[in-house]
Amino acid sequence: MSGTLTIVGLGPGPDDWVTPAARVAVERASDLLGYTRYVDRLTPHSGQRVHASDNREELDRAHHALQLANDGATVAVVSGGDPGVFAMAAAVFEAIESGPVSWRALDVRVEPGVTAMLAAASRVGAPLGHDFCAISLSDNLKPWPLIARRLQLAAEADFVIALYNPASKARPQQILDAFVVLRGCRSETTPVILARAVGRSDEDITITTLADAPREVIDMRTLVLIGSSATRVIHRADGHHWVYTPRFVGGVM
Amino acid sequence: MSGTLTIVGLGPGPDDWVTPAARVAVERASDLLGYTRYVDRLTPHSGQRVHASDNREELDRAHHALQLANDGATVAVVSGGDPGVFAMAAAVFEAIESGPVSWRALDVRVEPGVTAMLAAASRVGAPLGHDFCAISLSDNLKPWPLIARRLQLAAEADFVIALYNPASKARPQQILDAFVVLRGCRSETTPVILARAVGRSDEDITITTLADAPREVIDMRTLVLIGSSATRVIHRADGHHWVYTPRFVGGVM
Repeated sequence: MSGTLTIVGLGPGPDDWVTPAARVAVERASDLLGYTRYVDRLTPHSGQRVHASDNREELDRAHHALQLANDGATVAVVSGGDPGVFAMAAAVFEAIESGPVSWRALDVRVEPGVTAMLAAASRVGAPLGHDFCAISLSDNLKPWPLIARRLQLAAEADFVIALYNPASKARPQQILDAFVVLRGCRSETTPVILARAVGRSDEDITITTLADAPREVIDMRTLVLIGSSATRVIHRADGHHWVYTPRFVGGVM
Repeated sequence: MSGTLTIVGLGPGPDDWVTPAARVAVERASDLLGYTRYVDRLTPHSGQRVHASDNREELDRAHHALQLANDGATVAVVSGGDPGVFAMAAAVFEAIESGPVSWRALDVRVEPGVTAMLAAASRVGAPLGHDFCAISLSDNLKPWPLIARRLQLAAEADFVIALYNPASKARPQQILDAFVVLRGCRSETTPVILARAVGRSDEDITITTLADAPREVIDMRTLVLIGSSATRVIHRADGHHWVYTPRFVGGVM
């Protein structure tokens, strides 16, 4: 008998950003798997088995989840944000492709969620209102020259840029190197948004510019948004500002 | 007395993809505004005023919403998907920037939602598992040469590409022109996903390739995903396939 595996997006943090469909997928699971930080957001009921693991063990977690489903369990693997964006869904399908043929017959589903860049954008206005791209800065997964090249092409295309995984303890330099690349190809007055822990009690949002983007450590819980040439800041009397990118482009690049 | 204005994302369609926070923002509003198709998804209570309008009247709707909020109303403007992605939030901030100074003092918030590309991706696997971009094909808002240039640069950067607003009755040709551009710079075997009306009763998902992408009309309710050079298809015995983009890139572009 085969079970099921659902890779569930819990959104960026608060319960009121968890979709009802994600909630149901978690509640009906016999086995809950995920990075400890995300599993800790759940309130498992007495019949559920919980398997929390370290952030860097994505492929091991995927294998474990698939084995449990193959043995008949109703498995939910939880991710923060959306599970399809730099998260567990890709790891599960990597494991399926290189795993036993029986795994291809499993009922595997993905339950989408609000990904971090949408939540970060919502806090400051509408910076993603025009064409944009999302790049993960983790060079555990790809070499730096490729990241640098993508940043340059994204700037040339005049995309708003969302940077996921901007820095970690092991690589605090990554986001600073990215700012250096971007200063070479985008105006120093370009709006930059540093959105840390969006939706959590320690949420901290900074609106700055490419010239002034801070040199201090930006961590893995920060989502960085870099405006396009069209992105605008609306100044308000109380000192808080809105950032948005207009829908309309008049000229040709 | 000033009211409030919340631009609310209702997600791609089904109620169980509407976040609790979006639901609350709709329920507490005195005035609900939006494109008829989205307003029709709501069940207003007797105390609520409903102002439905045509899809092409975004800026008029934004002005109306801001005027109501300025007069003291609790206003919710509803969008499908996420309101910050090619939707109403940017229109509201455009209206604020060019409007009376009093509008800058209003309490304006954005309530994020599951945007179409996340829902579309979830139906086929994890095609957005690596760096990606989102481009709106509507040339009401920008000239075609700019769109074509962005497609070329996105292909050069090897982004997975999500295309919003791929075609309408007035411009059925747009998506076909985009396929022509992309065939010039990306392999003809590149996976292409056509996700129509995701989450609705008439949902229709097609997995094809850049060579075989259909010539018939693709409409505004379709979200198109185009794989990167790394995007893979996992073939299954039942004829259904999964599409995913691995997290890891081994080489340099």
